Amino acid sequence: MSLTEKLTLEEIRRKRPSKYAGLEEGVISLGLAESDFEMPKEVKEAMISAILEGRYHYEMDGVVEFLEAAMDKLSRFNGISAGKEEILPTVGAMNGIWLAYRILLKPGDHVIVVTPSYPALIGRPKSLQAEVTEAKVRKDGHLDLAVIEKAVSSRTRMITICNPNNPTGTVYTKDELEQLAEIAIRHDLYVLSDELYENLTYDGRKHVSIASLPGMRERAITLFGFTKTYGMSGLRIGYVVAEREIIRKMKDENTGIVIHPGTVEQIGAAAALKKCDYYIDFLKNYLEKVRNRLVAMLSETPGVTISPPEGAFFAFPNLIPLFENDKDAVEYLLKEARVLVHGGSGFGEGGAGHVRINFCSPLEIIEEAANRIRSALIKRHDAIGLKNKSLGNIV
Amino acid sequence: MSLTEKLTLEEIRRKRPSKYAGLEEGVISLGLAESDFEMPKEVKEAMISAILEGRYHYEMDGVVEFLEAAMDKLSRFNGISAGKEEILPTVGAMNGIWLAYRILLKPGDHVIVVTPSYPALIGRPKSLQAEVTEAKVRKDGHLDLAVIEKAVSSRTRMITICNPNNPTGTVYTKDELEQLAEIAIRHDLYVLSDELYENLTYDGRKHVSIASLPGMRERAITLFGFTKTYGMSGLRIGYVVAEREIIRKMKDENTGIVIHPGTVEQIGAAAALKKCDYYIDFLKNYLEKVRNRLVAMLSETPGVTISPPEGAFFAFPNLIPLFENDKDAVEYLLKEARVLVHGGSGFGEGGAGHVRINFCSPLEIIEEAANRIRSALIKRHDAIGLKNKSLGNIV
Repeated sequence: MSLTEKLTLEEIRRKRPSKYAGLEEGVISLGLAESDFEMPKEVKEAMISAILEGRYHYEMDGVVEFLEAAMDKLSRFNGISAGKEEILPTVGAMNGIWLAYRILLKPGDHVIVVTPSYPALIGRPKSLQAEVTEAKVRKDGHLDLAVIEKAVSSRTRMITICNPNNPTGTVYTKDELEQLAEIAIRHDLYVLSDELYENLTYDGRKHVSIASLPGMRERAITLFGFTKTYGMSGLRIGYVVAEREIIRKMKDENTGIVIHPGTVEQIGAAAALKKCDYYIDFLKNYLEKVRNRLVAMLSETPGVTISPPEGAFFAFPNLIPLFENDKDAVEYLLKEARVLVHGGSGFGEGGAGHVRINFCSPLEIIEEAANRIRSALIKRHDAIGLKNKSLGNIV
Repeated sequence: MSLTEKLTLEEIRRKRPSKYAGLEEGVISLGLAESDFEMPKEVKEAMISAILEGRYHYEMDGVVEFLEAAMDKLSRFNGISAGKEEILPTVGAMNGIWLAYRILLKPGDHVIVVTPSYPALIGRPKSLQAEVTEAKVRKDGHLDLAVIEKAVSSRTRMITICNPNNPTGTVYTKDELEQLAEIAIRHDLYVLSDELYENLTYDGRKHVSIASLPGMRERAITLFGFTKTYGMSGLRIGYVVAEREIIRKMKDENTGIVIHPGTVEQIGAAAALKKCDYYIDFLKNYLEKVRNRLVAMLSETPGVTISPPEGAFFAFPNLIPLFENDKDAVEYLLKEARVLVHGGSGFGEGGAGHVRINFCSPLEIIEEAANRIRSALIKRHDAIGLKNKSLGNIV
């Protein structure tokens, strides 16, 4: 299986031009949210067959086998019953984020975005002259329902979540999602739920789609994708699930933005959904081990505070008081550890002081990176003469 | 070569689900703007290699070989000198239309769209609360510069053209483009030029990009694509050429709409530009013969007025007085001739009463369709008892 066939750092570097853009040789990039594993062979085979068989023409209503595979997976994995007219193939999940905001918001509307979160989820409403309030999560990364409730105003139209969360890795429980649903229903709000990392939940946690909860089917807009967990970031394909009338409007709008996502990508994505559960199982188990090793190594590092991520493929340690801010931390780690990580400030309130470490990589690479990070942070800790010489903390 | 390997109607029908959507067996679709030829084998080979070699990851700054191939082609074919930062790969030309309008227009701005034209070019500014004035072309399909000049107001920001024109097939001359450029420069306007059909110009005409004219490099936004002439409509890839600062803004915006167009498509498009001039030469010569046959047959049909298209792959006959309107004409031809054509009203002022006939198809299929259309129109002509029994007209 392709996942056991480990790529060397040099191969990963060569094949991921954006993840490694501008980085000197020997630097390990754990910055950009991209998998270091290759996509399943079944996806490659399906795409190559599509090209050879001449299946690269317009498919205005979506490739039927993709829609059918999505329907089956939604029912099987997410507990969402959706017909073809409630699913829209998109040019990656980003296309779904844009369409949801563009269709549902008008200037002056208000959106509550639970943060930290993926930057586009926070930033895009503003480009439509809508207002955003960030609802910061609790210390453990879970929903602070009182903060969310308090943020609701008469102009509030939508609550946006990212579950499993990028960058914290938090996997929301059924219980807290039910409480969120209750707020949304009571105030008649939409919930935009970005579930790009749905496949990656650790320690036996189960992913719950808020759309599967009672009363939420018609008010949830759920975004799914392939780029992250199937190792195919450059194939721009994802899908949105929502109530039929919302999907109709999103489809009409997208016809005037991109016409539709690529036919060959849709055929590849159908194969991913139909034939590649084994790949996801392997990846999840493998990354759980990688996570354990990374968290163990960072938690032994003085000055580091880290919560073990419950899902997705990011660790999100807080590096204050080692640094003034996360920008300094990123610069220091690039220079001293020769590891690129992502500053937390871009992820909204609650992100500052943290760095996001993408651990979707072979164990050997993460171990090497974690060793370098640990050595560099110990050096930093000693250099700035922190009084508290204790080890790092798991919270 | 793949082009000489003629597909049967049954094969074309099976592989073009949107072009043939909802049509009974035996119906010939000349409706949707899609080629009935398969894409060049070099494009297929390049895409398959990309998949096998693991080149399907993020390429945030565009695939270098695609940008370089576009630079070379722009210089060689369009007389446009552009650096990498003046070219943006897009999810088909539609993505470029949307980005150009979204970046350059604000609510209340005014756009002059030369019509008849591709519907999105007319409609999209309105979805951004900008105002559109249609500047109808002359009877021969060429620019009516007096009408354009008269439409300019203090709020006018842009003039939009489609050259070669969809749906009329008109290829604008250097002389008339120079006059248009003079208007744009004098009033300090942008020109959005959709040149999707640049490769298809007949009777020895040469395609002229308005961006290549003096003073236009910084005020022209030019859209190019592959979907139409390379027979790859479902591969969503195109590119925009404009001044560096406009491209930077369009790129930033697109990052929040789709991130970027597919990596594998970009690699395929690079092969089209670098290796497939032979394909375009063949297609152009072949379609010129198809056009000649189609125009000859329609011009012998009573009640039909037709101008031989100078480029692109559409004939755009006027079927008044045979029908009250083009909607009736489309319905009649589908029922009586079992040929689907596209009503002209959707293309803006000057389109009503016409139908658009896509002739990018094997000659045998176009001959069969033209025979059926001619018979049905003769029947119609006789049934409604038109006094004027003369043959059709070429104008």
